[in-house]
Amino acid sequence: MARPELVENAAGRLVPAEVNGAEQVPFRGVGGHRPSGRKAAPLIRTCLDYPEDGDKRVGSLREALEQVGLADGMVVSTHHHLRNGDAVANMVFEAAAEMGRRDLMWFPSASFPVHEPQIAHMESGVIHHIEGSMNGPLGDYCTAGRMRGLGVLRSHGGRWQAIQDGEVHIDVAVIAAPTADPFGNANALDGPAACGLLGFALADSIYAERVVVVTDNLVPFPCLPWQIQGNNVDVVVEVPSIGDPAKIVSGTTRITQSPDRLRIAELAARFCDAAGIVRDGFSFQAGAGGTTLAFAIFLRDIMRERGVAAAFARGGSTKYMVEMLREGLIGYILDGQTFDLDGVASMREDPRHVDTSPFTSYNFHGKGNFASMVDVAVLGATEVDVDFNANVVTHSDGRLLHGIGGWQNCLAARTTMLLVPSFRDRIPVIVDEVTTLCGPGELIDVVVTERGIAVNPRRQDLLDAVAGSGLPIRDIHDLKAELDRLCGAPQRIQRSRDPVAVVKWVDGTVLDTVWRIG
Amino acid sequence: MARPELVENAAGRLVPAEVNGAEQVPFRGVGGHRPSGRKAAPLIRTCLDYPEDGDKRVGSLREALEQVGLADGMVVSTHHHLRNGDAVANMVFEAAAEMGRRDLMWFPSASFPVHEPQIAHMESGVIHHIEGSMNGPLGDYCTAGRMRGLGVLRSHGGRWQAIQDGEVHIDVAVIAAPTADPFGNANALDGPAACGLLGFALADSIYAERVVVVTDNLVPFPCLPWQIQGNNVDVVVEVPSIGDPAKIVSGTTRITQSPDRLRIAELAARFCDAAGIVRDGFSFQAGAGGTTLAFAIFLRDIMRERGVAAAFARGGSTKYMVEMLREGLIGYILDGQTFDLDGVASMREDPRHVDTSPFTSYNFHGKGNFASMVDVAVLGATEVDVDFNANVVTHSDGRLLHGIGGWQNCLAARTTMLLVPSFRDRIPVIVDEVTTLCGPGELIDVVVTERGIAVNPRRQDLLDAVAGSGLPIRDIHDLKAELDRLCGAPQRIQRSRDPVAVVKWVDGTVLDTVWRIG
Repeated sequence: MARPELVENAAGRLVPAEVNGAEQVPFRGVGGHRPSGRKAAPLIRTCLDYPEDGDKRVGSLREALEQVGLADGMVVSTHHHLRNGDAVANMVFEAAAEMGRRDLMWFPSASFPVHEPQIAHMESGVIHHIEGSMNGPLGDYCTAGRMRGLGVLRSHGGRWQAIQDGEVHIDVAVIAAPTADPFGNANALDGPAACGLLGFALADSIYAERVVVVTDNLVPFPCLPWQIQGNNVDVVVEVPSIGDPAKIVSGTTRITQSPDRLRIAELAARFCDAAGIVRDGFSFQAGAGGTTLAFAIFLRDIMRERGVAAAFARGGSTKYMVEMLREGLIGYILDGQTFDLDGVASMREDPRHVDTSPFTSYNFHGKGNFASMVDVAVLGATEVDVDFNANVVTHSDGRLLHGIGGWQNCLAARTTMLLVPSFRDRIPVIVDEVTTLCGPGELIDVVVTERGIAVNPRRQDLLDAVAGSGLPIRDIHDLKAELDRLCGAPQRIQRSRDPVAVVKWVDGTVLDTVWRIG
Repeated sequence: MARPELVENAAGRLVPAEVNGAEQVPFRGVGGHRPSGRKAAPLIRTCLDYPEDGDKRVGSLREALEQVGLADGMVVSTHHHLRNGDAVANMVFEAAAEMGRRDLMWFPSASFPVHEPQIAHMESGVIHHIEGSMNGPLGDYCTAGRMRGLGVLRSHGGRWQAIQDGEVHIDVAVIAAPTADPFGNANALDGPAACGLLGFALADSIYAERVVVVTDNLVPFPCLPWQIQGNNVDVVVEVPSIGDPAKIVSGTTRITQSPDRLRIAELAARFCDAAGIVRDGFSFQAGAGGTTLAFAIFLRDIMRERGVAAAFARGGSTKYMVEMLREGLIGYILDGQTFDLDGVASMREDPRHVDTSPFTSYNFHGKGNFASMVDVAVLGATEVDVDFNANVVTHSDGRLLHGIGGWQNCLAARTTMLLVPSFRDRIPVIVDEVTTLCGPGELIDVVVTERGIAVNPRRQDLLDAVAGSGLPIRDIHDLKAELDRLCGAPQRIQRSRDPVAVVKWVDGTVLDTVWRIG
């Protein structure tokens, strides 16, 4: 791969001027880029080409891919609601390999360790490269510079934006559907692989030229609700299983048992209380990670004590969120993904528990979205620096290990809090400069560690509000100095000048680069 | 208006080669036209231009129209779910007149007598012309050739197709919303003007450059379900009232009391039974007119007797459909509009009663739609000719009096039946040649009158199935001859050679012309 020209963006980061043949806009600062042009639009179809009786089934995935004209070099998308239990993405590329297709671009909404077989398809040439989060073995493969193209890491909202704006043109979307009818209407509320919703596949269903629905739970028309509309679907395929239910959603959700993490969660909840955020009609977003989940529990206790209820909470949903909804502590759950069986059941049965999509929640190139209406978003990070810039995709060793998820999008909340342990594997989490910039510090308001809470100096209002609260508010530099004293500041890693992936900002500009290691 | 060039289409009808400055494709026969190109796409927006707190309210409709940049010559759309009770379309053009705007094109999903004030706006130049159904005074105004542009009559599906395909580019959509939140999420399930759903405004919300939501029932975010998504909405306006509830939905739905019409309805139901259509898992669509409503009642009785249930029924919904749903005679109601309060309540409360849109149901330029999956559709007509061609927009006097509604789209059903009285005002309904061609005879299978049932000779299968049933099956020529004997064949009207409107077919081609009278 020829070394691409690098340019410095508004964050001072070197980024490629061109990615996978497409010219890029380097990050121009938060709010510094305005889009132009019209939304992407697929070809106009006609009912003449679809069965009048609405039965779009074919006998196999291969037959479906042949019918939609899968050709060399095409972009093939999948979604990740089945997480590490997904069987469909692997089936797609096995079928593509059998068909002799080459140089496909895989465009998942996220990838998981279960997708390791795609490495062999990259080695053999079936897949050219992946644009989407790469964890575990795929992340290592990418970080080692073995992929033919650059990885492109986008947030959930950024993925919608990229599709909508025509930056990524999906030729064939393959949608794993826990329930579907022969017309292609589909949802994720029932069936052995029920995962609640299919929001991550919604853009694909609307903007892709061709859409294949793969299901292991075919029901008669009409499959309701139609989270994916059959009117956007070309072909339906039945398979014995679309994934391993045990790896799709948890039977039970566990809260962290770590004393340090529990302390972080409690400090964060108390901070919200002290800052006046926990008031009647407020809103929050807390992920399903161990620490943020514990935060929700502490928050619940405060809400009960204060007698206040949230107007809405943004999911990922778990049993704990569902309990708060039932108890009346939350008016609505506006949910992007369900993480356990209670979440799935609640979405199926409770009209106040609503499936959302990156369009409603995160798309920055829309007429507003939900993310900026949230009072407080509680997130994690792999690193945060003294200017409150944060990293979620690489660790301090430079390896690509995580996707961005909705993280960047959530930074639009009125108050954004990062809940991070002081150390991971004896490496301090607060650093001078993050390895990879994923979130500009001006959007990150509070960093909560077990050793204290650092508030971004831009948020004097928060500092004023919590003054006298007895919370351990600390200057981030002091906090960092303490961590460095305890561990010694870590050695900077040796990185190449060869980009292996880029991190996009929510507006489609290039925020940072992931560099080859080794 | 310069007389446009006329060309003969595949139905032998003379149609303008150009309509309102746009070149047309003359009708090429059923299934004879294939679209090309990409779907329409509005400009890409950015959250930078929308309030972070999601509150898009402005103080007045005029302010809203100013904010979205309403300019001379723009296309302004409204929907007709509020029917003859709608107050919003009139408000829009009053505001536009106050603002001094001129030459607007009004693009309603349908217009009603309540919209008569638009005549003054056409006279004064605020409105250039109307594309959409025109009834009563607007129809007369158009038929008299007083409109500056040509009327364009489209089916519900054809309107979606025209917007989607970019034939009509909506600059500003104004959506009357019985319930909405400050972000613009809206539905029609609650509030004083509750009309059930907003499917006719869905295309407008997706494809218009700018979208204004007008409501008299503002609720806190999130308004659920979001039949219209706030993410597509620019501005929200509160007004005291969006319409007259008494004219929006009926408190009660009445079945025809006419003995002739009851006989037609009963014959039609018995025909369905004899033809083997009424079997377990079948599907039907029956409108809310007096005769088709009575058909549904007779059908219900047969279903009870036979012990069969329909998989689904397509609405317009009424109390009678809702009762059949509750009784288990219908599995689902896939509803395009609710006609009475029982319909609205059922859609609000029963998850088997689902709101649909012209996209799911009717759009011919999609990947299939529901209309062709319906076993039997029961419709009306103003005229039908001996080749089974039918008219729904004009009467035999040539006056434009009705919209097409979903009528053309429903012709895609496996069996299409027209339920018509033999005479209207002593004029036979069966004619040699329809005044205006709205539906090609090859798609119309059965004509049911109180004097007998005519079956299209193309449907020998139906003729075979009902042979020996004792039903009064008659040759359509014989039926016509009888009517002519009774009334005398009516004089052909004198029509000009000046087009005043065109009738589009479901694929966007021009099927026929409405000519100036007087």
